[in-house]
Amino acid sequence: MSTTEAAPVVGTRRRLTEIGPDCSALARGAAILGTGGGGDPYIGRLLAEAAVREHGPVPVVAVEDLPDDAVVLNVAMIGAPTVMVEKLPSAGQFAEAIRSLATHLGVTPTHIACIEVGGVNSTSPIVAAAELGLPVIDADAMGRAFPEVQMVLPTLSGISATPMALADEKGNTAVFDTVDNRWAERLARTATVEMGCSAITAQYAMSGAQVKESYVRGSLSRCVELGEALADARAANEDPVAAVAAVLGGTVVFEGKVADVERKTVTGFARGTARIVGSGPDTGLEARLRFQNEHLLVEVAGSVRTTTPDLIVTLDAETGEPITTEGLRFGARIRVVTAPADERWHSAGGLGLAGPTYFGYDTPAVRHDGTVSEGATR
Amino acid sequence: MSTTEAAPVVGTRRRLTEIGPDCSALARGAAILGTGGGGDPYIGRLLAEAAVREHGPVPVVAVEDLPDDAVVLNVAMIGAPTVMVEKLPSAGQFAEAIRSLATHLGVTPTHIACIEVGGVNSTSPIVAAAELGLPVIDADAMGRAFPEVQMVLPTLSGISATPMALADEKGNTAVFDTVDNRWAERLARTATVEMGCSAITAQYAMSGAQVKESYVRGSLSRCVELGEALADARAANEDPVAAVAAVLGGTVVFEGKVADVERKTVTGFARGTARIVGSGPDTGLEARLRFQNEHLLVEVAGSVRTTTPDLIVTLDAETGEPITTEGLRFGARIRVVTAPADERWHSAGGLGLAGPTYFGYDTPAVRHDGTVSEGATR
Repeated sequence: MSTTEAAPVVGTRRRLTEIGPDCSALARGAAILGTGGGGDPYIGRLLAEAAVREHGPVPVVAVEDLPDDAVVLNVAMIGAPTVMVEKLPSAGQFAEAIRSLATHLGVTPTHIACIEVGGVNSTSPIVAAAELGLPVIDADAMGRAFPEVQMVLPTLSGISATPMALADEKGNTAVFDTVDNRWAERLARTATVEMGCSAITAQYAMSGAQVKESYVRGSLSRCVELGEALADARAANEDPVAAVAAVLGGTVVFEGKVADVERKTVTGFARGTARIVGSGPDTGLEARLRFQNEHLLVEVAGSVRTTTPDLIVTLDAETGEPITTEGLRFGARIRVVTAPADERWHSAGGLGLAGPTYFGYDTPAVRHDGTVSEGATR
Repeated sequence: MSTTEAAPVVGTRRRLTEIGPDCSALARGAAILGTGGGGDPYIGRLLAEAAVREHGPVPVVAVEDLPDDAVVLNVAMIGAPTVMVEKLPSAGQFAEAIRSLATHLGVTPTHIACIEVGGVNSTSPIVAAAELGLPVIDADAMGRAFPEVQMVLPTLSGISATPMALADEKGNTAVFDTVDNRWAERLARTATVEMGCSAITAQYAMSGAQVKESYVRGSLSRCVELGEALADARAANEDPVAAVAAVLGGTVVFEGKVADVERKTVTGFARGTARIVGSGPDTGLEARLRFQNEHLLVEVAGSVRTTTPDLIVTLDAETGEPITTEGLRFGARIRVVTAPADERWHSAGGLGLAGPTYFGYDTPAVRHDGTVSEGATR
């Protein structure tokens, strides 16, 4: 088994101050942090770049610089990534979701934020922010991507997902107000399925102070850093996968070829399993990836190597380009990188929300480095 | 076949001016006009009577006396009657649905109205009106009961069902704003199913002028008249079924015993078929009732006798008590009465909304008297 040890996390090289018309590095980094989910990053990139070209650059505000009384709304695509690829949202749909929520709340938003940093939902808020002339916050509510509405760090702080607005491409909107964030997930998910398995949501309205308390800081900057590290390594003929692992503070745990992928879209999610036949240092071994929109568990040689909440990233073995779960194809040569999640996900509450047991896997949470997560044994 | 000819409609004997603590006649009449659907009338009666006992009588306003600028909200239970029986809504749930919608619209309602006159939804608005200290309107949007949100006369006038609020017994609410009333039905129905197959809805916000244009007038008075006619006939040892048919301007089309009932709850509806073996004047014949919450079609001796939108009412053969589709039991002796719907339902638009073809029955609309509805042949 290849276990290239990565360099320790060194923090972001530079802090983003605005999103310009080239979102390639951001989208590539977002696809890495999307851990296979969060939708096709190129869709997100195209939408964000078009919005910036039309409305001008979007200012990026660091969490430290956010006023405590800022009115922050989160904007995201919700649904099955397999469907999002075929049903592009319009810029107006993002604005409609925000308008719905803001009207319902009777507030005027001052900032737009990312609910997850993975895939298309790193750039969704940029589309909305450009449309509305608002800044985005350099942060997100997960530090990765997760498939369900309640799976965010603000839930651990008792912050409500609702009122939560949904908007579809036909002009229908819905606003939910639920007793807890699990109910927000249930009602929003069934509405999303009825709307055609994909919608735009505005949710988790909160103050600047709440963002400071519960968000993962520097997420957009980290995306750009990841995307640039990948491109720089390739330009310098260095190993791009190792470069990505280094920025993530993670490890390359498997190399091989995709042998089978079994997937189905169930209740609005893309669920499945991929079998990887080892090559190079992993010749003779097999790995299995299990996903629900995002990669949630990787087994190597029959043993659980790493589970959610830590990050499991699939990259093209040569180019280092991130591969989404729906992009996994028979014969693709990939390397699998595991990396640490925000430590709050390893609390008992965090593991209850998004640990392997929640997703139906009968295993304690196993960290990126193969050790059992303490929260899980408590 | 028994075809007791009924007396022509004579209009309501007296106009209701308030709902007092005895809702027995109203609930019984509502069960008749519910044409088998609209939920258990005794649940509606109990809820309304409890609300009136707690908050005092509810004033009833005639449509003629309604100010054009009145702010009217409609309140109803939505879901499968089979479930409503087991999951009683609280008075607070009605108020919560109205509060949700009123807040969303930024209005203060002045009147509460009935969306349908059948079953529990004749009395649902009384519960809400008592809670809120508002009058109810002596009218409804159908002149009967139908199972789907868009199936109301206001749809024919271009009035929107949305914004539409749903409230469940757990404290969850949803507000939908849709491109048309069919979409309101789709999104509200899936949310209702997720909420446990039964919820309270506040919908079809409209002005007094719109009520005047699109409502069926005198519906609550008609319920009371029906309920009293039934009770009076029984007290006088006259035939209660004939008395009900007379008030409805309808006809007794079949008498017999329930032989089989096949029913299932599908996507939030109670659908099914009942087979009736003839007795008395119909000995040797068979009838079949087809329902989706409400009775939609009756066949006698293999021929379609009457279809939606006209009324098909099942009554206990002896007592004349209305029997809901979920109350149809093997061995029950019933008589089937057909009666005319509001004539607007026989327009092309009306038949498109709620004619037999919409429900998947391959037949033109057949009126209560056995003639084919003109709208259907156009």
